[in-house]
Amino acid sequence: MIRTAADLSDKALNDLAKLILAGNRQALGRAITLIESSRQDHRIAAETLLAQVVPHSGNSLRIAISGIPGAGKSTLIEKLGTDFTAQNHKVAVLAVDPTSIRSGGSILGDKTRMNALATDQNAFIRPTPTSGTLGGVARRTRESILLCEAAGFDIIIIETVGVGQSEVTAADLVDIFVLVTLPGTGDELQGIKRGILEISDIVVVNKSDGINEDPARRAAAELKSSLHILDHREEESQRIFCVSSINGTGFEEFETHLLKSFETRTASGRLQKKRKDQLRTWLDEEIRLQSIEIIRDHSGYKENSDSIEDSVFNGKMTPSQGARILIEGCLKS
Amino acid sequence: MIRTAADLSDKALNDLAKLILAGNRQALGRAITLIESSRQDHRIAAETLLAQVVPHSGNSLRIAISGIPGAGKSTLIEKLGTDFTAQNHKVAVLAVDPTSIRSGGSILGDKTRMNALATDQNAFIRPTPTSGTLGGVARRTRESILLCEAAGFDIIIIETVGVGQSEVTAADLVDIFVLVTLPGTGDELQGIKRGILEISDIVVVNKSDGINEDPARRAAAELKSSLHILDHREEESQRIFCVSSINGTGFEEFETHLLKSFETRTASGRLQKKRKDQLRTWLDEEIRLQSIEIIRDHSGYKENSDSIEDSVFNGKMTPSQGARILIEGCLKS
Repeated sequence: MIRTAADLSDKALNDLAKLILAGNRQALGRAITLIESSRQDHRIAAETLLAQVVPHSGNSLRIAISGIPGAGKSTLIEKLGTDFTAQNHKVAVLAVDPTSIRSGGSILGDKTRMNALATDQNAFIRPTPTSGTLGGVARRTRESILLCEAAGFDIIIIETVGVGQSEVTAADLVDIFVLVTLPGTGDELQGIKRGILEISDIVVVNKSDGINEDPARRAAAELKSSLHILDHREEESQRIFCVSSINGTGFEEFETHLLKSFETRTASGRLQKKRKDQLRTWLDEEIRLQSIEIIRDHSGYKENSDSIEDSVFNGKMTPSQGARILIEGCLKS
Repeated sequence: MIRTAADLSDKALNDLAKLILAGNRQALGRAITLIESSRQDHRIAAETLLAQVVPHSGNSLRIAISGIPGAGKSTLIEKLGTDFTAQNHKVAVLAVDPTSIRSGGSILGDKTRMNALATDQNAFIRPTPTSGTLGGVARRTRESILLCEAAGFDIIIIETVGVGQSEVTAADLVDIFVLVTLPGTGDELQGIKRGILEISDIVVVNKSDGINEDPARRAAAELKSSLHILDHREEESQRIFCVSSINGTGFEEFETHLLKSFETRTASGRLQKKRKDQLRTWLDEEIRLQSIEIIRDHSGYKENSDSIEDSVFNGKMTPSQGARILIEGCLKS
C-alpha cells in the first residue's frame, strides 16, 4: 500500500493525514497498513502521521464485542452496525483476534460474513493483521482506533474472540466491554470465565428467539444473580440484554443503553478518567516494548554485542552482567 | 541473611565467594538469598559475587524433574538424591514452581517431604522463592545452579510442577528433562500435553508397584508408541522407565542411564552445544528484562517522565511517540 520510500516523505504523510481527516476510506486503509508494519522507517512515519491526527481523535464511542466462537458475534455486529449507520452514525469495525495470529484469521477475515456492513458507505471494516503477537496487535489496534476517529467514525467496534488474554487486552482499548453469550442448558456460566464477567459492562444473551426464548430468559436470570455477586465496581451496575440478531428482539434497548451509557459517562467525567487510565497503561506498555527495540537498534549495542556474547560463552561474565554492560554502554552517563 | 550494607562490600563478597568455593552450605544459602533479592544494590552485589564463582561452575549434571501434582516427584527425588549421595555425589535440589508464586509454595516448601535428603550432609535443598514472576524465578534459578556448582554439587535437580509454562522454562535450564507420570486406566496420555512429551528426554512411569505393575507396563508401551511418532529430534531417542519409589524397582536402570547419558553427551559435544544455546537464550532474556529495568532507573527517564506523561494525557503526542522520546533521551547519540 505504501509502495515507495517517497511515500514516507513529510509531504506524502501530510497529504495522507489530510485525506484521512476528510474521511477518505482508502487513505484510512493505507494508514492502518503503515501502522501495522514493523519496519523501523514505517514505524517512525506512522508516528509522524499519528501526531497530525491525534488532536482530531477521541470523539467516538469505543465498544468491544467479545464471546466464544459461535456466539454469533459477526451477525450481532452486522445488525448493530447497520442500525447505527441508519441513525447517521459512522461505524468502524476492527478486530483483535489472537487465533488469527496463529491460524491466519477466523474473525472478520471473511468480510462476506458482514455483507450489509461491508458495502455500507458509512461503515469501515478492517480484519486483524495475521502476524505479530497479541501485544503487538493490541498496540496497533489502539493506533487504528485513533485513525478511524480522525476519519470521522463516531462508533468503533472491536471484535475479539473469547479465548485467553484477548478479552482483557480488548477491554483496555474500549469504553464499554460487551460479552456475547448463548442460552445453554444447565449451568449458564459454564465456560465463561469469572474474570471475563468481571470486566464486562454489558452481557448479551444472543439467539434469544424461537425455542431459545425461555432458556435465554433463564440464562439472563442466572447471569444476573452471579453478576450481582461479582459487582463490586464503583461504576454503574452491569446490564444484561436478551437479543436476537434474526428477529431484532432486544436490539433497540441494547443500542439505546450503549448510547445513553456513553452520554452519562461523558457527563460524569468517568469516561475521561477511564481513558486517562488506559493512556497510562498504553504508555507503560510502549515504554516496555520500545526499550528493548530501541536498545537493540542502537549503534552501541550493535558494536559490542558480539564481544559480550563471546565473553558470556567463555564464562568470563554471566548473562546478567553481559546484558547490563551492553545496555549501559548505550546510555548517557 | 545479608543483614547490613557492610555485607555488600567487595571484601564481604570475596569472603562469601571463598566460603562457597570451599563448599560451605550456609554461605551458599546466603548467596542464593542475595541473588533472589530484587533490590538494585543486591543485584549488583550478586553479579560481583557470580563473576567470582562462574569460572568454577558448569561441572554438574543438571536434571529437571517435572510432573503433575501427585505424580510422586518428591519421593522420587528423595530416592534419586539419596542413591546419588551414597555413590559419593553431591546433590542440590532447587525448585521452579509457578504455583508457589501465587499460593505460597506447594513443592519443596515442606522440606519434611524429603526427610532423608534434608538431613544428608552431601545434599542441599532450596525451595522456590514465593514472590516474583515465573520469568523472574527462572532467571534466579539459573544463577543458583551456578552457585551450587561452584560449591561442589555435581548433580543439580530442578523440581517443577507440570502446569503452564513452567516445564518449558525448566527445560531451558537443564541438560536432561524428566517427565514423571502415573499408570492410569484408559488413555495414558490423558492430561499430558504433547508439547511436554516433545521436550522430555526421559519419561518415568512412577508407582509401578503392587497392582499398578501391569497398568504401568501398558502405560509405558502406549507412551513408547506415541513417543516414537513425536521423536523427530536429532538427539538420542527418548527413554521410558517404569519405577517404584517404594520398592526401588527400575531405579538402578534409570540412574545408570542418567549418568551414562551425561557422559555420552559430553563426549560427543552435544551437551556443550545445548548449554551454549541455553546461554544465548538466557542472555537474550536478560537483555529483554534489563532494558526496561535499567532505562526506568536512568536519570534521564526520571527527569522527563512526568512531562512526557502530561504531553500524552493532553493529546500532544501519542504514547508510542512519548515512549520513543523518553527512551531516546536516555541514550547516547
